[in-house]
Amino acid sequence: MSSTLIVLNLKTYLEGTGEGAVKVAQACKEVADDCGIEIGVAPQFCDIYRVASQVDLPVYSQSLDPVGAGSFTGHAFVQSIKDAGAVGTLINHSECRLTLANIDASITTAKDAGLKTIVCTNNVATSAAAAALGPDYVAVEPPELIGSGIPVSKADPEVVTGSVEAVKRIDPAVQVLCGAGISKGEDLAAALELGSVGVLLASGIVKAADPKAALEDLVSKV
Amino acid sequence: MSSTLIVLNLKTYLEGTGEGAVKVAQACKEVADDCGIEIGVAPQFCDIYRVASQVDLPVYSQSLDPVGAGSFTGHAFVQSIKDAGAVGTLINHSECRLTLANIDASITTAKDAGLKTIVCTNNVATSAAAAALGPDYVAVEPPELIGSGIPVSKADPEVVTGSVEAVKRIDPAVQVLCGAGISKGEDLAAALELGSVGVLLASGIVKAADPKAALEDLVSKV
Amino acid sequence: MSSTLIVLNLKTYLEGTGEGAVKVAQACKEVADDCGIEIGVAPQFCDIYRVASQVDLPVYSQSLDPVGAGSFTGHAFVQSIKDAGAVGTLINHSECRLTLANIDASITTAKDAGLKTIVCTNNVATSAAAAALGPDYVAVEPPELIGSGIPVSKADPEVVTGSVEAVKRIDPAVQVLCGAGISKGEDLAAALELGSVGVLLASGIVKAADPKAALEDLVSKV
Amino acid sequence: MSSTLIVLNLKTYLEGTGEGAVKVAQACKEVADDCGIEIGVAPQFCDIYRVASQVDLPVYSQSLDPVGAGSFTGHAFVQSIKDAGAVGTLINHSECRLTLANIDASITTAKDAGLKTIVCTNNVATSAAAAALGPDYVAVEPPELIGSGIPVSKADPEVVTGSVEAVKRIDPAVQVLCGAGISKGEDLAAALELGSVGVLLASGIVKAADPKAALEDLVSKV
Repeated sequence: MSSTLIVLNLKTYLEGTGEGAVKVAQACKEVADDCGIEIGVAPQFCDIYRVASQVDLPVYSQSLDPVGAGSFTGHAFVQSIKDAGAVGTLINHSECRLTLANIDASITTAKDAGLKTIVCTNNVATSAAAAALGPDYVAVEPPELIGSGIPVSKADPEVVTGSVEAVKRIDPAVQVLCGAGISKGEDLAAALELGSVGVLLASGIVKAADPKAALEDLVSKV
Repeated sequence: MSSTLIVLNLKTYLEGTGEGAVKVAQACKEVADDCGIEIGVAPQFCDIYRVASQVDLPVYSQSLDPVGAGSFTGHAFVQSIKDAGAVGTLINHSECRLTLANIDASITTAKDAGLKTIVCTNNVATSAAAAALGPDYVAVEPPELIGSGIPVSKADPEVVTGSVEAVKRIDPAVQVLCGAGISKGEDLAAALELGSVGVLLASGIVKAADPKAALEDLVSKV
Repeated sequence: MSSTLIVLNLKTYLEGTGEGAVKVAQACKEVADDCGIEIGVAPQFCDIYRVASQVDLPVYSQSLDPVGAGSFTGHAFVQSIKDAGAVGTLINHSECRLTLANIDASITTAKDAGLKTIVCTNNVATSAAAAALGPDYVAVEPPELIGSGIPVSKADPEVVTGSVEAVKRIDPAVQVLCGAGISKGEDLAAALELGSVGVLLASGIVKAADPKAALEDLVSKV
Repeated sequence: MSSTLIVLNLKTYLEGTGEGAVKVAQACKEVADDCGIEIGVAPQFCDIYRVASQVDLPVYSQSLDPVGAGSFTGHAFVQSIKDAGAVGTLINHSECRLTLANIDASITTAKDAGLKTIVCTNNVATSAAAAALGPDYVAVEPPELIGSGIPVSKADPEVVTGSVEAVKRIDPAVQVLCGAGISKGEDLAAALELGSVGVLLASGIVKAADPKAALEDLVSKV
């Protein structure tokens, strides 16, 4: 296995909900097995258990609330995420922003439970800030490019190289992913060339006519 | 079956997380089968599928976000909740408050998906307001009594009778539950006497040394 | 004076900020004096004192946080709003949504301080819900029409008549305003004909080349 | 003038609201003039204009929303804050937390308008993260000590020294304030000794029987 990481965020796409989440995850696993690149999926909370118990691939939560056991209703509690079979979590996705204090607490909470942490950011400055909190990964995604079909690696390569540089300066142990508009083999290749170790992506694969074929294209240039 | 309804909110209690959620739900089912009163459970999002696929009782989500299919990360999408096996949802619990517009949209979203709706409120005025939105149930819970062990039926019976009266005036089709501090048979009996059709409860049962015995006590006076 | 009410929300428009707020308020006062219709302005928090101390017209806050005196930073405390000279407040504007519990608490807090309350809503159901909380006014504004230039009275008259009817059924003491896309004399006339007692408006006047002339046109048909 | 900075957050204390804000600010100015240490006040939004136009001392906003001119209601728009006479702003106070993206945008927005920026944080990790965003000051305040009367310099000196060290490593141009429980001369002296350049404080002065005397004590040891 290379150290490259691909994480597929299923969001609330119908194609990635319920049984659909299992099917997309199965496609991810097949492609990962073929190409030797690690591919994880981030299904909705309700689908984590179903995906993790039926498909042998890394499952991430889409978010995590830094609450403990107790009187919290409607929260994403680390223990339920872990018991459901997740091995990691996204934190602070642009569609699920947290306060700075809660990003920090979510990282600590996830680490204590043995979950990998991917903190999403929107520019170089926030990538640097997130790195100071010591997550496993920072995933930089300019919000205006998310779902646009225009890959960040082409539209704004400086946000990737700038984040890689800023993150390394603050904590060399933190790795950088990039996202927004990624869907093709050339996008992943460009992302790696810019210094990131992988990509966070969503609609380009989940909503593709044939997700498995789209994934095969994605990994075809590396 | 009577028309009485008991809903047990598992919150993020460790005893009601993961496999624990299944065990508590199993206890609920056994007591419900014995006494003929409907008992539902509201596990965490991650546990809905596991509980619903293993135990034959009504499962509620702890919350629901009024978002559709699409670019939403970390949200509680109605379709994933339904696909996981839930038959209803809490909305606006005091630990997971929504805006007025989102309470309304959550009710509409849940109804369109065939889910039962229980809107939580904190006093007579908000019970009346919630009733105007047409949910199946309004569950009034004075926040200061939640988890207190002091039953609302004893500490503040007027909030229950006032809510029943206000709700009936606005929409007689909406039924009233009450909650906060409820755990014993006399609490449920008092709740019904005050005009509510049931209770929403949590720690008094979930954190009991023997949840099944606690549930048996709860239903012993009706 | 008629019982008609016009409230001009200055939002964060540059033309209605700082000294600009005073000028717009002055225009409102002149038109109100001429036509005998009550016109109020809702400037930003920072501008309430300046407007209220320099122009003799009713000043509303754009929002109010239901917090008391104490350890609250960055909140809109009722006493500071009142001390600055406001006579009322908007609550739950679509650009500043509150939870149901906080709408209720804001109304109570404002009333206790002698401030008039205008609760904004987005459809008939939420207008009914807001009426159940007993504010002075409910201002219904379909969010999709706000700032559109398409008057709610033309695009969706049923949301106005439906709100008037629903509000009256729940509490006849509550009056209905309508808003969104309102800027011309015919819009105000239509709003009154649909049963509302006035309008909440913003960009159509504040961003007009000549706000005073725009206001004169607004009141010209009643 | 030394480079020491004292900022007094008036929160929503009745003693620091409306005319009270002016009086407290006047006391601050007198003590600052006497001792040569810069003292600023952060009144509520509604009181900024009144304080800034009547007392000649640095006025800070308690928060700032990173919105531009336009359709934003109930927001703290930078231009209104500046027009009212503020020279700086607190950002992300523990009682007014922002998302990471909004802290970054608030700093940029404030800087573009020529306002000084003080970003509040809760521990060493978030102090480091905030420093990466390039504000003028990071003010570290362990939330559990705020309003406690137990000075952070005594209860948790490591959070101050740790923040100073982490911030300097990331951006030596950023200075550190500390807060929580500060009220006496020995607290300020200890804060400076731990490497911070000043303090952010509130109740210890605002709610003192004689705020001016309390301020005189505060500056007596430096």
